[in-house]
Amino acid sequence: MYLGWIETEALFMGVQEQSVAGYGLENAVDTAWILVAAFLVFFMNLGFAMLESGMQRAKNTSNICMKNLVTPAIGGLVFFIVGFSLTFGKDLYGVLGNPMELAMLSGLETLDMWPNTNVTAFAFFLFQVMFAATAATIVSGAVGERIKFSGYLLFTTVILALIYPLVAHWVWGGGWLGSIGMVDFAGSAVVHLTGGVAALAGAIALGPRLGKYTEGKVNLIPGHNISLSTIGALVLWFGWFGFNPGSTAAATVPSIATIAITTNIAAATGALAAMVTAWLHLGKPDVGMTINGLLAGLVAITAGCASVSPSAAIAIGGIAGMIVVFSVEFIDKILRIDDPVGAVSVHGVGGAFGALAVGLFADSKYSGGISGLFFGGGFSQLVVQLVGVFAVSAFAFGASYIAFKVIDWAIGLRVSEEEETIGLDVSEHGMSAYPDFEVPS
Amino acid sequence: MYLGWIETEALFMGVQEQSVAGYGLENAVDTAWILVAAFLVFFMNLGFAMLESGMQRAKNTSNICMKNLVTPAIGGLVFFIVGFSLTFGKDLYGVLGNPMELAMLSGLETLDMWPNTNVTAFAFFLFQVMFAATAATIVSGAVGERIKFSGYLLFTTVILALIYPLVAHWVWGGGWLGSIGMVDFAGSAVVHLTGGVAALAGAIALGPRLGKYTEGKVNLIPGHNISLSTIGALVLWFGWFGFNPGSTAAATVPSIATIAITTNIAAATGALAAMVTAWLHLGKPDVGMTINGLLAGLVAITAGCASVSPSAAIAIGGIAGMIVVFSVEFIDKILRIDDPVGAVSVHGVGGAFGALAVGLFADSKYSGGISGLFFGGGFSQLVVQLVGVFAVSAFAFGASYIAFKVIDWAIGLRVSEEEETIGLDVSEHGMSAYPDFEVPS
Amino acid sequence: MYLGWIETEALFMGVQEQSVAGYGLENAVDTAWILVAAFLVFFMNLGFAMLESGMQRAKNTSNICMKNLVTPAIGGLVFFIVGFSLTFGKDLYGVLGNPMELAMLSGLETLDMWPNTNVTAFAFFLFQVMFAATAATIVSGAVGERIKFSGYLLFTTVILALIYPLVAHWVWGGGWLGSIGMVDFAGSAVVHLTGGVAALAGAIALGPRLGKYTEGKVNLIPGHNISLSTIGALVLWFGWFGFNPGSTAAATVPSIATIAITTNIAAATGALAAMVTAWLHLGKPDVGMTINGLLAGLVAITAGCASVSPSAAIAIGGIAGMIVVFSVEFIDKILRIDDPVGAVSVHGVGGAFGALAVGLFADSKYSGGISGLFFGGGFSQLVVQLVGVFAVSAFAFGASYIAFKVIDWAIGLRVSEEEETIGLDVSEHGMSAYPDFEVPS
Repeated sequence: MYLGWIETEALFMGVQEQSVAGYGLENAVDTAWILVAAFLVFFMNLGFAMLESGMQRAKNTSNICMKNLVTPAIGGLVFFIVGFSLTFGKDLYGVLGNPMELAMLSGLETLDMWPNTNVTAFAFFLFQVMFAATAATIVSGAVGERIKFSGYLLFTTVILALIYPLVAHWVWGGGWLGSIGMVDFAGSAVVHLTGGVAALAGAIALGPRLGKYTEGKVNLIPGHNISLSTIGALVLWFGWFGFNPGSTAAATVPSIATIAITTNIAAATGALAAMVTAWLHLGKPDVGMTINGLLAGLVAITAGCASVSPSAAIAIGGIAGMIVVFSVEFIDKILRIDDPVGAVSVHGVGGAFGALAVGLFADSKYSGGISGLFFGGGFSQLVVQLVGVFAVSAFAFGASYIAFKVIDWAIGLRVSEEEETIGLDVSEHGMSAYPDFEVPS
Repeated sequence: MYLGWIETEALFMGVQEQSVAGYGLENAVDTAWILVAAFLVFFMNLGFAMLESGMQRAKNTSNICMKNLVTPAIGGLVFFIVGFSLTFGKDLYGVLGNPMELAMLSGLETLDMWPNTNVTAFAFFLFQVMFAATAATIVSGAVGERIKFSGYLLFTTVILALIYPLVAHWVWGGGWLGSIGMVDFAGSAVVHLTGGVAALAGAIALGPRLGKYTEGKVNLIPGHNISLSTIGALVLWFGWFGFNPGSTAAATVPSIATIAITTNIAAATGALAAMVTAWLHLGKPDVGMTINGLLAGLVAITAGCASVSPSAAIAIGGIAGMIVVFSVEFIDKILRIDDPVGAVSVHGVGGAFGALAVGLFADSKYSGGISGLFFGGGFSQLVVQLVGVFAVSAFAFGASYIAFKVIDWAIGLRVSEEEETIGLDVSEHGMSAYPDFEVPS
Repeated sequence: MYLGWIETEALFMGVQEQSVAGYGLENAVDTAWILVAAFLVFFMNLGFAMLESGMQRAKNTSNICMKNLVTPAIGGLVFFIVGFSLTFGKDLYGVLGNPMELAMLSGLETLDMWPNTNVTAFAFFLFQVMFAATAATIVSGAVGERIKFSGYLLFTTVILALIYPLVAHWVWGGGWLGSIGMVDFAGSAVVHLTGGVAALAGAIALGPRLGKYTEGKVNLIPGHNISLSTIGALVLWFGWFGFNPGSTAAATVPSIATIAITTNIAAATGALAAMVTAWLHLGKPDVGMTINGLLAGLVAITAGCASVSPSAAIAIGGIAGMIVVFSVEFIDKILRIDDPVGAVSVHGVGGAFGALAVGLFADSKYSGGISGLFFGGGFSQLVVQLVGVFAVSAFAFGASYIAFKVIDWAIGLRVSEEEETIGLDVSEHGMSAYPDFEVPS
């Protein structure tokens, strides 16, 4: 039997020849797994784009799409140049990684042709790029419908170059939170709490949208397209199967299957708990709240997905789904902070709860040692998790708030009232998202 | 070279330490494959959501999205608690699996740290969860635009806890249909025929939508968004590459590639055959019919994807694509059963044909032994398949019809005429899907 | 512990039994990787469908969706019957593969139960099917809003059966371009340049849309839905992670991770460069141009993704992103060729640049030997790439133009003015894409 492509395999850029040198099948399997997971995490950018687009008004659709298109682009570049090294470079003082060591992957490139684990390290880099972009993109919804596009670009660069890498270094890169034993397997705190409190800082710095709070009234500004939000929610659920199980950084570890199971169960109970809570509390099974609950369940299981049992995941997802309904209401109606998509509740509150939940539900049978309060471990792990949540919140909120204020001072953070009224699509991008349809301004 | 994450790998929850104990590379590869396939099958929920959403009116979009959001949530919980054990627990009387044995995965959890195949078994559980949700979600389109949301939730719970698990046990879990030799590799009958006849039962129990059949006339109620339906169709095709090739439950079997090929070919000829049939029969290359043909081709190849040649897949997909055009018309115009999305034809008729097609086209070169009528095997396999189709149809239809009637008696199955007229979005969920656009009620 | 499915594994069609015979774990890993990559490339059909749908008017949405639904269907059938053998059958005269040898995979089927590499070859076939469909689908946008549906079907059959297979054979199948050393790893030239110049031929053969060029004025015809275009762009970026890293045709080669990295970086800089260029040149950060730049970056890195460093990918993506802005303007305003979606610039110009970029940026550390002009290799590789670009362009353009002209002569290529005015949805498919919304004709 003859197959042209086999005879011409030399055309495949000498790739086959490289394969002999010290690269084993286990490396290949781990690398392939991390890459597939990284692709799934990348795909979450579509989830965020559609979720946020659907939850905002038609006149700002192009703008929110544009923000979600450039966020992974900025992430792909900035995290390559500086973020990755700051996260995973050699630890300095427990606070940051050496920013030069792995800049532009130079530290990996200087190796003679990738022996052993270094290929997997390249895949791991791509996975981390996608994580960083996720943290950044969480912000885009909360600041929606009023932030200047240029201001958004600057903030996204800052969070990707500085804020996220430091937090990630503290927990995953050899920094002080990892040293004291904080467990945040796939980033309830590192990714979601960081993104959520940055979103809070942005929403506060910007103030509410025009017409949101008038004469003491809290007005609902409905999103323009529930189909898009549904696409967003289901794409995010799908992408989370890369986010959590991929955080094993290997396929050759037995926990990948149970991680996928706890992830799925928490999403399920998050959605159902939010639906029931909204039904009882608001009188209707609200679609937006169900989506928020689903996502809050996913956010909350992210820290503990490898440390808790599937049964505990029922509780973690369910509690997160309940909390999110009240949190959205509290932030909107009591605090009067205008977060158009509920990002602060889903990612901030959900992320904080998720990190703490490790201290409550960790089960040594799954975690390989650590036990939470409800599983005979006492308060020790819970205290560590509390310290972590406090530190991440305080730093990420403070740094983000300062960044937003500096941007405001330098170039202005918010569009004019007139621009906001006609919508950011026309004012910022000179176009309409739906020119064939009648859309109110 | 130093990489923070390697030194800090202990942070990965002790996962690396577990990896030494009796978990080989082959297990890892199989597990990763099943997980990726499970994720793809999960993604089909987005396909169904958009397909059904696009094929119904704008005023019911939030409702259909909500149904498709909660179906995998209910599946994730109910199949974990009871469905999986009923399907794959130790066989009792050929009819059901022991419902306690694997409830909440307890049977798997009691094992000391996952030796060997049990990790793969966890992955297999997740894959099965996604299959169950698929069967349930097929129903949501057929009962669309008129079923009470609470009634839908109840029925979904019943089909996931009871109806689907029994059928799946009969064929795959050690039950009587497997014992007599029925072949249904990835579930033309188990998943699609079950879902399709449950959809039929629901459509009959509910009756047609207001305005569908008036004064002897059959009225067309066009779907509101062909872009969404197209997203649905292509996402389902994509997801089917998890559905069929993933049903090997292993990557280390040589047939995975040919299964993917037969699946793709049947989708192709299903779409083309339906397009041509509609063109000749209706005068136009109808988009909805082409989508139905594409899906019918996929449904039909699902039973035999591992038993037939790529060439036979041309015939199976093509016949299914032709049948579906006439089936949709027959059910709509002759039987006057109102199925807004054609689910009964695509999944019910397509599924029955697919199961029978194994008895016609099975080729021992692919099937590892079994031959169908056209490949020298005589009628024996065909008769077994016929028995299976009859048994699955009768049980799933009967049980579903009873369930719908009980729900109707208990809480009412159908919304009021007024609610149906203004649309389920407003009446059931208190919202509009597209508030920025003018939408007729 | 008992698991029904393990005892009943015989139901899995004897698949397990086959696994013993000469099929090793390395084959399994490679096969699984190629299949997953093939699925991702398939998913690009959704990307193209939504990108093109969003960039055209609402009245032609059903038509563009239909074209993108049937293109992979035609590809799945035609490439199986003739295209694959013409590409990868035994080379005849350096020009074509023996069209009979692998027709309908017969050459592979005659083997006794798939020993060793042949399973991987089956997976490779599916991967190639998806590649062929990609080349074909590039055309659909450029000829949009005015081509007869029947004419499109015919051209799609021709490009899949003849034009693409010949080009692919020249470079990858043992043909003359591969023999002289052309490097086109994943097909900047083979897939994208071929598709792009075929799109150009179609746009020229058809002439501009009604109202596009009036009394010396160039009119903008805006697309109807930026959300759909955003879905398209992000799905394509996602799918490209199958397109490029999957082109290793193996998971067990170390370069898969760096290929994914160069791909991601070029997408990022393509998007950012186009955004900045459009901002400076047009005064606004244009969303459509950013999407075009993102895609041009991906197209351009496709040839060299395995031959260049991540740093060089910054340049390749960035240059492609800049070029595409001016190319779109040049083709629209100077050449006055009406390409509704910019396919000629993105895939044609981007593809040509990408193929040449190998001759500029190839780095022996990554390419396994070949060096480009900027990396000490002199002009030799660049000249080979130039020959390749010229040959592929000339043949694909000429053959496509002839094909369009023959179709025009035989059945007519363009719809009537009246049909074009009311839109192809009504005139070609007898339906509206958005019947619940007011859409202008």
